[in-house]
Amino acid sequence: MTIDSAAVAGALARLRERRPRVHCITNSAAVNFTANVLLSAGAIPSMTVNPEELPDFVASADALLVNLGTLDPLRREAIDVAVGVAGAAGTPWALDPVFVERSRPRLALARQLLARGPTVIRGNRPELDGLTGAGGDDAAADALARSSRATVVRTGEVDYVTDGARAVRIAGGHPLMASITAAGCAATALLAGFLAVEDDPVTAASACLGFVAAAAERAGAQAAGPGSFVPAFLDALHALTPEEAGAQARIS
Amino acid sequence: MTIDSAAVAGALARLRERRPRVHCITNSAAVNFTANVLLSAGAIPSMTVNPEELPDFVASADALLVNLGTLDPLRREAIDVAVGVAGAAGTPWALDPVFVERSRPRLALARQLLARGPTVIRGNRPELDGLTGAGGDDAAADALARSSRATVVRTGEVDYVTDGARAVRIAGGHPLMASITAAGCAATALLAGFLAVEDDPVTAASACLGFVAAAAERAGAQAAGPGSFVPAFLDALHALTPEEAGAQARIS
Amino acid sequence: MTIDSAAVAGALARLRERRPRVHCITNSAAVNFTANVLLSAGAIPSMTVNPEELPDFVASADALLVNLGTLDPLRREAIDVAVGVAGAAGTPWALDPVFVERSRPRLALARQLLARGPTVIRGNRPELDGLTGAGGDDAAADALARSSRATVVRTGEVDYVTDGARAVRIAGGHPLMASITAAGCAATALLAGFLAVEDDPVTAASACLGFVAAAAERAGAQAAGPGSFVPAFLDALHALTPEEAGAQARIS
Repeated sequence: MTIDSAAVAGALARLRERRPRVHCITNSAAVNFTANVLLSAGAIPSMTVNPEELPDFVASADALLVNLGTLDPLRREAIDVAVGVAGAAGTPWALDPVFVERSRPRLALARQLLARGPTVIRGNRPELDGLTGAGGDDAAADALARSSRATVVRTGEVDYVTDGARAVRIAGGHPLMASITAAGCAATALLAGFLAVEDDPVTAASACLGFVAAAAERAGAQAAGPGSFVPAFLDALHALTPEEAGAQARIS
Repeated sequence: MTIDSAAVAGALARLRERRPRVHCITNSAAVNFTANVLLSAGAIPSMTVNPEELPDFVASADALLVNLGTLDPLRREAIDVAVGVAGAAGTPWALDPVFVERSRPRLALARQLLARGPTVIRGNRPELDGLTGAGGDDAAADALARSSRATVVRTGEVDYVTDGARAVRIAGGHPLMASITAAGCAATALLAGFLAVEDDPVTAASACLGFVAAAAERAGAQAAGPGSFVPAFLDALHALTPEEAGAQARIS
Repeated sequence: MTIDSAAVAGALARLRERRPRVHCITNSAAVNFTANVLLSAGAIPSMTVNPEELPDFVASADALLVNLGTLDPLRREAIDVAVGVAGAAGTPWALDPVFVERSRPRLALARQLLARGPTVIRGNRPELDGLTGAGGDDAAADALARSSRATVVRTGEVDYVTDGARAVRIAGGHPLMASITAAGCAATALLAGFLAVEDDPVTAASACLGFVAAAAERAGAQAAGPGSFVPAFLDALHALTPEEAGAQARIS
């Protein structure tokens, strides 16, 4: 399966036009950068983790991010409430099982959440390995997609997107993405935004990752290191047109 | 009523000289940027939301910010303690009812806080609309100022400052301010700092917003997008002299 | 005692090669910047403050940071758990008693933690003054080092490192370090990373601070103000070779 340039361009154009609201439950290291990534790309973030407020925020959001970083009792409760509201409303949601391979309580929660129907799961290879207990390779990702009925995204040098039947690879990006904190977390949040404007999760994920890779390449060409990469990446998310992102995305 | 260039320059000069301590209870997306805005402009931030510590921090602060973002049980208690200490000590405080239009528990708290005597309330039009239940236009802002006895600030393309009897408009700024997270939150924190060095809240708010708009214009002229706007804005807050800020501020 | 260029270069080379995991319990204003400082320099951060998860994270970390900022009940419990795990495993840990001079509950906790064997304590003069109750000068720092059996680091225009028997001064750096939030907090986190690759705490602290000062000088030469200083500082932490850092460090 191939997602073509027009699919990437179309999804980004709709994101810019509709400006979806993305409610993010995310970790403390990622919260500012994630909000700026969403704003730069064209979406509207909200970030509260207060369980009492989540019904209102999630009910008025177009997509939800559940990131398991800096998990604490308040976030646990917030996640439970938010996933319930999203499930009842049919709102798409993306699960980011950050560092599950290093925390048993977090891994246990991630496995419970798999059963609650995330639209997309996005992790790196060690995280997917932790989650599946059966490795993080393509076959394990495919199996996880089939068992969870979610689209599974493994990011790395080449990204891999699978729903268990169809699979897509996205190349490109820039090595400095690995030297800044919360790059993956913010990408999952943006992916949630794409789910709000593109019904097919495989297309949404591929379009998002192709766009992120294109922005990272542009930023990497200008940056002198990880510090200057951050503002350059946000600038590129803001500046890239749908046509440029579509033309630059390397999806196969 | 007009606030002239000399008033802006004078307030900023006193901020730089006295370096007021501003204690901030703010949301997780805003905390780092807010601290950097205060430091760049010349004030000294502290950011704890621990109720146990707030009496000491607020008692040794010159002004207080109460921002309702990422409201949680701990912040609720922190706000209650901090407002009590500020009220007893006569310390000025600024209320930022961020996203009250999207959360009923937050709106209820904002309305309770109105009765506890904030010096200034700062919001955008949807937030003031949510707060008043009667729209966010000039007349609604004036009415809110009269009923709450606070100075009300509505930020937008043109900012509006009113105490119900006097009204001021501040033009300028830059559209990229709307593409970065926490710009309004940080402006309210800085406004609290101006309250510490300028007794008249209408003058303090106008001077602060005129300064912020001048810095945003300078930053916007250099930035390639929202990412590079952030460091350029902080640089401008640090570099602008009181005279430059006064001359550039567009207050009527 | 003098730590020479080769010692600085050697410690940084080992940090880059071994990529130590540094678990950070730190304040909300510092969390993103601290993670980026560690990544830029070559270490791997984790940042959770969830007590339930800390045994797993600290047990798989090579060093621990305990920063007392935005102290709240959850962080209190997290600190207690983390220090216990680190102590049992012999993992080095650094204590940052940020703002202890402004909060009595925080000061009380800092004094309790002194008795639990931190490898290094890092503060500025007012913080060390608050901690010792006997001033923050060299003699007070020496006395604190002897009584606590920790290496004590006082940062300022010239940094001072002492274990009560040996003392080292590190000059250099840049004044803009005082105009950005969390610079000291992030330096203590990086110092924890150096403790993971250099057994002598005085050498580890001196090498870290010499490296930080070298990066700050390089950044300050390029920056237009505190905003552009932040990305330039991260770029410099990433770009400086061990040999450059060693040659530039001004340690006596």
